[in-house]
Amino acid sequence: MQPKPAAILPLATAYYSYLYRKELVSNILPFWQNHSKDEVNGGFFTCLDRAGNVYDTDKFMWLQGREVWCFSYMYRHVEQKEEWLDMALHGARFMQQHGRDEQGNWYFSTTADGKPLVQPYNIFSDCFATMAFAALDKINPNDEWKKIAVDTFENIIRRRNNWKGHYSKAYPGTRPLKNFSLPMILCNLSLELEHILGSDRVNEFVPEVIHEVMEVFYQPEHGLILENVNPDGSFNDSFEGRLLNPGHAIESTWFIMDLAKRMNDPVLIDKAVTILLNTLEYGWDKEYEGIFYFMDIKGAPPQQLEWDQKLWWVHVEALVALAKAYALTGNERCAAWFEKVHDYTWKHFRDDEYGEWFGYLNRRGEVLLSLKGGKWKGCFHIPRALYQVAATFEAI
Amino acid sequence: MQPKPAAILPLATAYYSYLYRKELVSNILPFWQNHSKDEVNGGFFTCLDRAGNVYDTDKFMWLQGREVWCFSYMYRHVEQKEEWLDMALHGARFMQQHGRDEQGNWYFSTTADGKPLVQPYNIFSDCFATMAFAALDKINPNDEWKKIAVDTFENIIRRRNNWKGHYSKAYPGTRPLKNFSLPMILCNLSLELEHILGSDRVNEFVPEVIHEVMEVFYQPEHGLILENVNPDGSFNDSFEGRLLNPGHAIESTWFIMDLAKRMNDPVLIDKAVTILLNTLEYGWDKEYEGIFYFMDIKGAPPQQLEWDQKLWWVHVEALVALAKAYALTGNERCAAWFEKVHDYTWKHFRDDEYGEWFGYLNRRGEVLLSLKGGKWKGCFHIPRALYQVAATFEAI
Repeated sequence: MQPKPAAILPLATAYYSYLYRKELVSNILPFWQNHSKDEVNGGFFTCLDRAGNVYDTDKFMWLQGREVWCFSYMYRHVEQKEEWLDMALHGARFMQQHGRDEQGNWYFSTTADGKPLVQPYNIFSDCFATMAFAALDKINPNDEWKKIAVDTFENIIRRRNNWKGHYSKAYPGTRPLKNFSLPMILCNLSLELEHILGSDRVNEFVPEVIHEVMEVFYQPEHGLILENVNPDGSFNDSFEGRLLNPGHAIESTWFIMDLAKRMNDPVLIDKAVTILLNTLEYGWDKEYEGIFYFMDIKGAPPQQLEWDQKLWWVHVEALVALAKAYALTGNERCAAWFEKVHDYTWKHFRDDEYGEWFGYLNRRGEVLLSLKGGKWKGCFHIPRALYQVAATFEAI
Repeated sequence: MQPKPAAILPLATAYYSYLYRKELVSNILPFWQNHSKDEVNGGFFTCLDRAGNVYDTDKFMWLQGREVWCFSYMYRHVEQKEEWLDMALHGARFMQQHGRDEQGNWYFSTTADGKPLVQPYNIFSDCFATMAFAALDKINPNDEWKKIAVDTFENIIRRRNNWKGHYSKAYPGTRPLKNFSLPMILCNLSLELEHILGSDRVNEFVPEVIHEVMEVFYQPEHGLILENVNPDGSFNDSFEGRLLNPGHAIESTWFIMDLAKRMNDPVLIDKAVTILLNTLEYGWDKEYEGIFYFMDIKGAPPQQLEWDQKLWWVHVEALVALAKAYALTGNERCAAWFEKVHDYTWKHFRDDEYGEWFGYLNRRGEVLLSLKGGKWKGCFHIPRALYQVAATFEAI
């Protein structure tokens, strides 16, 4: 790495955009190209140890989708490298052949050779399949890709109010909470599908999603977004209702900033930036640095034993949100926070020795699991964030 | 605490039995009596903060069952205190009134006033309900308690091969693993119900359970017990198949020692003690002390982000197993391990300031969550272990 120039301007955006783009194309994408391709069965291995060796061969459909999306997106936005198109097609063919049940729902996982292992209990597999095929269709237009993307999207919309189906453990009616994850992802998903769904459909959809995130889940008295609320958006004093997931809230602020920019709505931009800064202040570990994984808004002990760990996606999503917030507003607090989160993230998560980045640190910022990929970490948050930060700063 | 006498004998059993019994009756049981009783709705609060204040009012049925069992058991074995019988009846009445669905399956949780919240997806609620009503019936014989215990036990036996029912996420047939938890608990459960089921039924049941634990889940080439195996007991190279849960394996060794003692089978005792010592050697954290929560037998990264944490139940169950192993065999390695685990446990888990013990420590043995009770920690492992260690050493 080059030494960072002294900050004469509020933020050395040219330096950061150079650094982030270089990391994307020289470190992250080659790591997944070199290590994740299953040449025998198709699809991707995502359980890669520190050096990139495969330690488990199960295929998690949502990570297959994320990697297809990633290589498609980078082909379109970074460089039309034939090998990136090949990677996207390699994953898409495996998904097309092995990924769905007879109703078109996406399995959570399959064996290496594509036998279904875990049922489609989790609608996020479907969300990332939609994103994958929509992105692939943009670089390799094909009616089959379009059809998979649209069918899956309509399936998500149909299932959205009861997506857990018979896997739901909640007794009906006693505590009907709304969860933040699906509105947040739909917010991003609708934009990804605009070339297929058409702008009218997207424009009809966007205000509803913005309302959910910024009115229903946002709690004005705290200035924070909760993970679960009563159907009317009010606070529910239970483990689920008290739960804060700072990374989730932070990630959603940049989705909202993207929508607000599209709608040319400076008030919405300001509100998203305020929530971003509130969440960082609240979620930052004042003792050991880094952003906590889970918190309880009343300070009660959270259920999640991993609450104090520092996760890669939380930190890289914060960098994207801060870059966008700074680019849109010039707010110097965003610049200062960007530098603080950047320094922590590059120091603790980046693996100088074997490439790619660590995913899981303990509270002190020490490596907890040395894996580069697993059941939940794949080729997605880091490359997307590196691209988003670089592109955002280049456009200033 | 009194200073520990110098170890002239291999183990100062009189000192330990005094210490453990005193801790049980002067610290642990009073804490739950004083803080967990819901005087308004009946039943027990189990979400208690460091000082015993209620931070959440949901009622987790398996923890209700465990607390009823505990006060019933202590009334029978420690002292016939009227207030302990009252505690047991207080919890049993709430369970009887609010705990089951129409098929007699036990809900996972209810609201404070007994409205069902989480469906009976988890058969361990049923296991602890059976134990609770069987134990209560021993001190307060009543056909209603017997009937609940027997009906629930028969329900468990009926459901045992497919207890997750429609909540199971596994695709049928692809990877049909057997899980260790239910055989292990049944091993203990059958003995608790002997006065109701009759010795013939128990004697018919016991060899099957011993076979499962000691032949199917035990892996001779490693000398360890795995959490999940192929139906024929062979190793399955997957996240689930590679998983070790040292606390679980250790706890099972004292259930087996109890059965082996009953059957007067010294070979089985020796095998259980060997597995206990193997598991401690393997699961002990050589860097920071304490026993790991989860490990991967091939050294791959476990899925469980909490893998390196130190949990109360793991350590107190190890103390019970070591006390029993020492009492049965006089093995000096058991004495040495008992002292080592005792010193770690009493130093790190016990809360000298507010009473009761902490449940969750990080790898370094620092308190991770200061709660005394929650969704998974209640009035069970610590009092049971304190009693078992004291009684075991007193009987030498």
